[in-house]
Amino acid sequence: MNEDSSIAKVADILREEAHRLGPGAKLRSSRELVRELGVSPVTVSRAIARLTAEGRVITRPGSGAFAAPGRRASSEASDSSWQTVALGDRVVDDTGVAGLLAEPGEGVIPLTGGYLNANLRPARELSAAAARAVRRPDAWALPPLSGLPELRRWFAGEVGVSRNDVLVVSGGQAALSHAFRALAAPGEPVLVETPTYPGALATAKLAGLRAVAVPVDRDGVRPELLAEAFAVTGARVFYCQPTLHNPTGATLTPERREQVLAVARAAGAFIIEDDFSRYLATSTPPPALVSMDDHGTVVHVLSLSKISAPSLRVAGLIARGPAARRLRASQVVESFFVARPLQETAVEFVTSPAWRRHLLAARREIGERQRLLLTLLARHLPAAEVHLVPPGGLHLWVRLPDETDEPALVERAHRAGALVSPGAIYYPAEPPGPRIRLTHTAPADHAELTEGVVRLASAFERG
Amino acid sequence: MNEDSSIAKVADILREEAHRLGPGAKLRSSRELVRELGVSPVTVSRAIARLTAEGRVITRPGSGAFAAPGRRASSEASDSSWQTVALGDRVVDDTGVAGLLAEPGEGVIPLTGGYLNANLRPARELSAAAARAVRRPDAWALPPLSGLPELRRWFAGEVGVSRNDVLVVSGGQAALSHAFRALAAPGEPVLVETPTYPGALATAKLAGLRAVAVPVDRDGVRPELLAEAFAVTGARVFYCQPTLHNPTGATLTPERREQVLAVARAAGAFIIEDDFSRYLATSTPPPALVSMDDHGTVVHVLSLSKISAPSLRVAGLIARGPAARRLRASQVVESFFVARPLQETAVEFVTSPAWRRHLLAARREIGERQRLLLTLLARHLPAAEVHLVPPGGLHLWVRLPDETDEPALVERAHRAGALVSPGAIYYPAEPPGPRIRLTHTAPADHAELTEGVVRLASAFERG
Repeated sequence: MNEDSSIAKVADILREEAHRLGPGAKLRSSRELVRELGVSPVTVSRAIARLTAEGRVITRPGSGAFAAPGRRASSEASDSSWQTVALGDRVVDDTGVAGLLAEPGEGVIPLTGGYLNANLRPARELSAAAARAVRRPDAWALPPLSGLPELRRWFAGEVGVSRNDVLVVSGGQAALSHAFRALAAPGEPVLVETPTYPGALATAKLAGLRAVAVPVDRDGVRPELLAEAFAVTGARVFYCQPTLHNPTGATLTPERREQVLAVARAAGAFIIEDDFSRYLATSTPPPALVSMDDHGTVVHVLSLSKISAPSLRVAGLIARGPAARRLRASQVVESFFVARPLQETAVEFVTSPAWRRHLLAARREIGERQRLLLTLLARHLPAAEVHLVPPGGLHLWVRLPDETDEPALVERAHRAGALVSPGAIYYPAEPPGPRIRLTHTAPADHAELTEGVVRLASAFERG
Repeated sequence: MNEDSSIAKVADILREEAHRLGPGAKLRSSRELVRELGVSPVTVSRAIARLTAEGRVITRPGSGAFAAPGRRASSEASDSSWQTVALGDRVVDDTGVAGLLAEPGEGVIPLTGGYLNANLRPARELSAAAARAVRRPDAWALPPLSGLPELRRWFAGEVGVSRNDVLVVSGGQAALSHAFRALAAPGEPVLVETPTYPGALATAKLAGLRAVAVPVDRDGVRPELLAEAFAVTGARVFYCQPTLHNPTGATLTPERREQVLAVARAAGAFIIEDDFSRYLATSTPPPALVSMDDHGTVVHVLSLSKISAPSLRVAGLIARGPAARRLRASQVVESFFVARPLQETAVEFVTSPAWRRHLLAARREIGERQRLLLTLLARHLPAAEVHLVPPGGLHLWVRLPDETDEPALVERAHRAGALVSPGAIYYPAEPPGPRIRLTHTAPADHAELTEGVVRLASAFERG
């Protein structure tokens, strides 16, 4: 141990020396090192052996040790252009998702984003839950492959299904990837609402699926168009957000929920119900599709990160029948299971009094910020037309006058210090006109929200 | 807050009542609840609304509230056989991987498994690292999408590459999934060693790839056969474990490393270097392929869970050029990023003195258990021929007399209370004869290892 730490120390010194002197340079001799560092010759030679193994140093018998030639420079330095041929045409487009996750620049007020602002997250409570979780002796052991029983039971209770129907996965995005891949084969169509969540479009595309758009109105997706889309495309999967739909805020009415289920069932198709907003509603939403489903039609995604924090990457993926078995098998083969400490933390958090307290506080703040944003828009941006005032959620969906140049406005707003989400990215097909999505929970506080809208309005006026 | 907790309490009581009385049963009336529980009528009606939303209770105007009919029974109860048609033929085979992760039954001694026994894991040190990690104010925030800079730097330093070449992913298995999917298209061939790790075969298959076997000998894969396999198949990807290869224990010699790189380079192909055993070696292994690579040929997987614990699901995926960008884009679209607390925990752990201490202790124990297993085999199972004595690793690869019925022996050993890994699962093509893999780090201690081998030997003798 003592000897090993001396070796590590000498290796660190030599690593730094090799880096500083540059490729090909001769390092101090072993004799010099022994003298100057006051260590044994064995320690020096072991440290050099370690750096040789790392490929940082080469030794020439009789001449000493040299900094290795710069062969492990980063990607830019070496010629990897042969890869372009080897990789072929399957380029992965992550601009949409990376854009959603991008941090705003210094001084820029975010009016976009899929998570609560850091000020609204229960970070301290999550850390307390994690501290309790990792105290358990088996915190780092293999969990049951489908997830911790307590966590599965909790997810099941939230939507009224059996615990056996729940698979714990690494967050909502991973759940969508699993579902698209397991339920449809590359090349097949998948029906999606239009507009819809760009992250779902990106995962569907990565799974090789073709997204076919079905329009929504203020009551959610239109069942008669859904039925027609199934008939025309032969799709076996419909992806939707029936509650506080992103970006429009529409919530599917109870009547339409029955119709949508009947339509999918008649088409022999699955519904992927992305219930990302369950805990963002300011009034009780209608029952989830999965809780109305008798036939294994619905595959339900229940995410915890939206209401808590981005790094609580835990979601419940609920399914029944052969689809459930396929989803489970896919996760086991792809990534084994979700790290146990995260699962234990989630259980600790959602079963603690802090959970209900946080839900109430978040709902109150969502309501206040939504009202404030409506007031600000009426005052500073009267030309903007709010699509609908949803009972909760993080965003308002805003229609702009037809003559507005949407990309130019987004760009001008950004230069003015307000980041908004352009409407175009939500449409799998042609956008119907200029729109933006405004996220009231992204700014740090009410003052920042106000200032953000003022900046947006000034950018609009200069348009 | 107070009111909400009363609602939650009444809802809990009613949930229990609905469950106890069974589907269709009438619940206590609102009036009775108000009187018996001492709460307000508003609280009762909100609690009932909540259960209705959960789908556990239905209300009939004028008649009261009833436990919902049992429509959300688990998969077995409802008819989901239509799914079999909708899902088609793409069945996911997880038996191999699930088998690797299965817990041995009560009283059964495991002589198989990919992780250190719980007694050998640094669980306390990991929990201490996690406790420090979650104390940081941004522990639950979005990390940089490619991973925490400190963690990327650490992984880079381990194999002598640039920090920019490192992507942090959710464990080695996820790394393999990403790599197979990003580097080859469905239907394409991928070259693998034979025998090889069954988990890699399963992910390659899930990615739609055809695994083509290239033989290994005691010095690792045979370069001339690798060249021939590239020529015959046109494959663009070779998956391998050059150090302490699973299951044989072979380590690719330095000369062959140069040859293998040259062969892949000539074929315009990628090498996926699965470096799962880097920290399980009892003597310094040859330089990693990635540290010898000038052209972005090697995609390197460096896992932390093997040397620490299954639930530290963090690995470094090292790549350069367009392949690196594609791997990054895939991870962002598929699952966003690795939960920050896990990354912070990994950084805390590997940069603490506990890390070096653990490495030394683990290596010492690996050496001792390997020597013990060799002694036990010589004494109790002299008919078994150990393929080679590797400088470290978790397993020995054992050849049995040709007349041995391998599946029958594995089954008999299991009944005798010793779980061993059948050789056949490691072969993508026909196995050459009876083999088993014995894991000396799976039993709790030396006594259990001894008893496990004794049980295996008795099963062998009864064959």
